[in-house]
Amino acid sequence: MELDLSQDAGQLTASLVDIESVSGAEKPLADAIEAALRELPHLSVHRDGDALVARTGLDRPQRVILAGHIDTVPVAGNLPSHLKRGLLYGCGSADMKSGVAVQLRLAASVPEPTRDVTYVFYDCEEVEAERNGMLRLSRRQPELLAGDFAVLLEPTGCTVEGGCQGTLRAEITATGKRAHSARSWMGSNAIHAAEGILAVLRGYPARQPEVDGLTYHEGLNAVGVHGGVAHNVIPDECVVTVNYRFAPDRSPAQAEAHVREVFGGWDVAVVDVASGARPGLADPAAVAFLQAVGGTPRAKLGWTDVARFDALGIPAVNYGPGNPEVAHSAGEHVALSEISECETRMRTWLTG
Amino acid sequence: MELDLSQDAGQLTASLVDIESVSGAEKPLADAIEAALRELPHLSVHRDGDALVARTGLDRPQRVILAGHIDTVPVAGNLPSHLKRGLLYGCGSADMKSGVAVQLRLAASVPEPTRDVTYVFYDCEEVEAERNGMLRLSRRQPELLAGDFAVLLEPTGCTVEGGCQGTLRAEITATGKRAHSARSWMGSNAIHAAEGILAVLRGYPARQPEVDGLTYHEGLNAVGVHGGVAHNVIPDECVVTVNYRFAPDRSPAQAEAHVREVFGGWDVAVVDVASGARPGLADPAAVAFLQAVGGTPRAKLGWTDVARFDALGIPAVNYGPGNPEVAHSAGEHVALSEISECETRMRTWLTG
Repeated sequence: MELDLSQDAGQLTASLVDIESVSGAEKPLADAIEAALRELPHLSVHRDGDALVARTGLDRPQRVILAGHIDTVPVAGNLPSHLKRGLLYGCGSADMKSGVAVQLRLAASVPEPTRDVTYVFYDCEEVEAERNGMLRLSRRQPELLAGDFAVLLEPTGCTVEGGCQGTLRAEITATGKRAHSARSWMGSNAIHAAEGILAVLRGYPARQPEVDGLTYHEGLNAVGVHGGVAHNVIPDECVVTVNYRFAPDRSPAQAEAHVREVFGGWDVAVVDVASGARPGLADPAAVAFLQAVGGTPRAKLGWTDVARFDALGIPAVNYGPGNPEVAHSAGEHVALSEISECETRMRTWLTG
Repeated sequence: MELDLSQDAGQLTASLVDIESVSGAEKPLADAIEAALRELPHLSVHRDGDALVARTGLDRPQRVILAGHIDTVPVAGNLPSHLKRGLLYGCGSADMKSGVAVQLRLAASVPEPTRDVTYVFYDCEEVEAERNGMLRLSRRQPELLAGDFAVLLEPTGCTVEGGCQGTLRAEITATGKRAHSARSWMGSNAIHAAEGILAVLRGYPARQPEVDGLTYHEGLNAVGVHGGVAHNVIPDECVVTVNYRFAPDRSPAQAEAHVREVFGGWDVAVVDVASGARPGLADPAAVAFLQAVGGTPRAKLGWTDVARFDALGIPAVNYGPGNPEVAHSAGEHVALSEISECETRMRTWLTG
């Protein structure tokens, strides 16, 4: 499969959507992107598994990174792509092959940007963190990810979204004592005891802190509950799985301490935690980007790979075409107008 | 495998325990019991699947039924049986191969009882009701179960336990609206909403009504809870499975109406319900039995197959060796002294 980078960004998005690339099966798409990039003499191309890094080498005083993942969630009967009233439908159209199309268009058509550019295309963003292609690159070849500022082209509706919230998952356990349910008073019902956990969640006052000028919005929610031994047994354990989304003014350690304090008296086991990222919009490179693309930045609430750039010490923002609310749905789509708007604004930035 | 019915009842219990008979795999034990019964010329023997019915035919004015199930819950590393300080350990020792041993001893050694006797040995009591061997017999050959009074030799510690409580299972569902957990305020958390269900359960005042002179003790308990879509999704459904154990002064329909009233405002789905049985201890046949075996009767709280006899219009009680509290546990055991006490008292009854 060949990719024609001279198509407009909407057509190119359709071509990318039609090369299926569910996480773990990105090879055909990675091959096509690699072949297209190797046609561009102003870029040096590196491949690591199904991730690709293409860099200009103009010795500019600044280097910026444009990054996007090439995998999608499982197809939901929404391939091949189709166009209807200016909207392109299909798996990955918003999240985030339209962003990848913008990256490829810029890579092909801006041979002499005013800043050196590193284009990163990576695999396995939609699955567990350990498989993430950007994480792998940052461990194996961190020098390829070096730079002064990064833009992650995740769908944001062409609005700059700064930083991201962290996420922590914990299991809160209520315990009891088993007994036959015909003689329930001989035991102690752990599911009944879990009422106290749910009461804490229900009454939880979520913070909405301002961090570096952007307003975040936390949340502490049950995302799972299970308990029960058999239909005639008073259960001795009930586990509520909670998800704490925390603003980037809290570290993972602070987030964990907070959850333990909120559920003081219960057994708390932290299952996993991912750091958030401060917006870093005061950084000169970010200021220049904001001036070029315009609009009023807002806080990113969902966790994204900007947190990885943050961990590498690189200021990063989210900015791309598409509505994140339709991502991962069967009706996923993106407006062609947003794709071209994003391309135009970023070209202005890279050539200004 | 041959059963020697001339052994004492404790030894015979050990022989029965050592013929593994988990529900659905009773055939070897049913074969052994059938062979032993067919050696007894005073009994006519009928087999239905792995259930056996053996009857005297003495044209006595009264016919009594002695019934016991021959299956056990799954083995828990507790076979073969072993004896320690007067206690026989092993899967099914209390529930209820010691009772079956008493049945077999009486069948073999009381050829001319003062009442005609029907001995029922049946399969699949420990599993879902539809597989129950007594239910099958009552549908296919109800005439074999005809009688004036029945004793179910379930473990009661050699105390007469009258009637049984009914049991109803229902699913109470809390609903909400899905959303990404990074923007939880866009949805409505069904697990949080289930707090109200648990509050009802926690505050439930259980009745302890007196029925025909015996005091029952009801209970309404969660026996299961599940909810959750994915670790990053606000769940739209949480189901609490509750078990209502109701005294025999309430019918299944009244029990259902009560549960629907208690959970007014929630979605209630009744999954299954089994009627209880009134103790019926005022029946002359029951009075005669009580006088023969002695002791002070108490209410049976767990559901047993006495409810099936009740449904057939036959007064029935629970009376057998073994502590029901150790049934279904790896350490299940029965005191040899209780087995012989039960045998002696029932022989007194059948010959008096």
